[in-house]
Amino acid sequence: MRPGTAVSRDDDPYASRCVDRWEAAPRRDPVVWGDGPGPLDQEQIAHYRERGFLLLPGLLLRREVEALAVEARRLLEQHAGSEAPDVISEPDSDVVRSIFRIHRKSPAMRDLVCDSRLAGAARQILHSDVYIHQSRINFKPALDGREFFWHSDFETWHIEDGMPRMRALSASVLLTENTEHNGPLMLVPGSHRLYIRCVGETPAEHHKQSLKKQECGVPSREALAHLVELGGLTSVKGPAGSVVFFDCNTMHASAGNLSPFPRTNLFFVYNSVDNPLTAPYGGLPPRPPFIGEPEPIPVGAP
Amino acid sequence: MRPGTAVSRDDDPYASRCVDRWEAAPRRDPVVWGDGPGPLDQEQIAHYRERGFLLLPGLLLRREVEALAVEARRLLEQHAGSEAPDVISEPDSDVVRSIFRIHRKSPAMRDLVCDSRLAGAARQILHSDVYIHQSRINFKPALDGREFFWHSDFETWHIEDGMPRMRALSASVLLTENTEHNGPLMLVPGSHRLYIRCVGETPAEHHKQSLKKQECGVPSREALAHLVELGGLTSVKGPAGSVVFFDCNTMHASAGNLSPFPRTNLFFVYNSVDNPLTAPYGGLPPRPPFIGEPEPIPVGAP
Repeated sequence: MRPGTAVSRDDDPYASRCVDRWEAAPRRDPVVWGDGPGPLDQEQIAHYRERGFLLLPGLLLRREVEALAVEARRLLEQHAGSEAPDVISEPDSDVVRSIFRIHRKSPAMRDLVCDSRLAGAARQILHSDVYIHQSRINFKPALDGREFFWHSDFETWHIEDGMPRMRALSASVLLTENTEHNGPLMLVPGSHRLYIRCVGETPAEHHKQSLKKQECGVPSREALAHLVELGGLTSVKGPAGSVVFFDCNTMHASAGNLSPFPRTNLFFVYNSVDNPLTAPYGGLPPRPPFIGEPEPIPVGAP
Repeated sequence: MRPGTAVSRDDDPYASRCVDRWEAAPRRDPVVWGDGPGPLDQEQIAHYRERGFLLLPGLLLRREVEALAVEARRLLEQHAGSEAPDVISEPDSDVVRSIFRIHRKSPAMRDLVCDSRLAGAARQILHSDVYIHQSRINFKPALDGREFFWHSDFETWHIEDGMPRMRALSASVLLTENTEHNGPLMLVPGSHRLYIRCVGETPAEHHKQSLKKQECGVPSREALAHLVELGGLTSVKGPAGSVVFFDCNTMHASAGNLSPFPRTNLFFVYNSVDNPLTAPYGGLPPRPPFIGEPEPIPVGAP
């Protein structure tokens, strides 16, 4: 559970939403937290450290991906039309955009979360046991799937969920081919090394809006241009079964999907068990557990 | 001016918005209307005929493009905040999305319209003198530029403007680099050979909505999937100064621009002087002249 209260804003190296103008502050945490064993080789670790992400094309076997795609469709059918708070619709329709907490809804997803190719890489990079801070499917359906605006996950997780340090990462599993046409994940390489303080006060119950369309906790256009000038832009394209790991502070976004093919990806956020949530640094009440897990139960624990 | 009235719907090979379900009807017109002289070689002509488009990377010289980009910015500054009907803002902001009739607003644009590299190719493909049916700048500004949904230009030009035959094409001049990240033009190769009849009645004064966000005269998702299954998807990427020619019936779209770089393109629609507008085939009054020029004055005529 959340011990104590957050540090005061004055001492917080990752303060945000309390400034009049954006700032790029230095990252105060390692990217790769140690040199332990794991499935990634030194070249892959170096790539992740330098660029803030690592794409492993075709990491999962075809039959594994097919079974996961069936399971994702089952979850979609089961939850379509649901009023549950962890089922999010697109901003301008009833089409399902995301289903959260899938590792608790589906044994197949729970098994995947524990898979050493994913959890092992997370343990290796974060150099500790890990737990699932958040899990979801982003369906991004053909033609209906709308954009996800630029954001650093960590900024929101710190301010709205109370995550103290940059010791978390996302593993995204591509369940469909991701192409230049169906709204692939865009990343700013190297952006994980700077922390962008955002402008604007957080509205109450911000997540009810931000999960559809985020407008607070996003970088100013000058901040984004600055990061892209430094690191360029890339997008994650690959066949179904590819997995991309990206640091909690890597700036990312994805465009809408205007193609007739869905872009369905799983997202699992691994946080270090040594980095449990405290009170949110933004001062508002924490978001619900389906967005920010308050119980750090290690992945694979009985 | 518009002579007579349109043919009855019963006789119109390109009837649309009068069916309960989409249909793919055969094209009844040539793609390349003759074998006359012009700037394109036989291979380029064959590519255009087969695929429905032709990209000529870097066709304009750097200094030409730079001057045109300056002129586009001047037009933007001149017309920002304008309430004029031919200045279109983005659907969810006051940011300028398009300025129409630029060949009448700017001597530099008029000169470009007459340039033999553009007008000569149009004359060669359409095998006649040509005139400008429509011209515009699509600014698609960084972060603010929203999508253009799938459509065949001809469907709208036929139903709403009274263009009788498929004897027109667009020349789009890239004023900024077009990349996979800034919402490049997407095309369905080969789609120009089928005419998709759309479902739905045209609302009155449709253009006031459709120039921001088109929802009528667009293909059903099944129709689009059918075309993409036949021809695939491609996007037009290239340096500033590239020019893409595409047939009036080639299905196209473009995603929003989430990058920090604008995607600013010029569009000039050349129609054959032998294909002047009649009364709109959809039965409603014609759209204003800035969208569909009623006076076929040949390009280059004194």
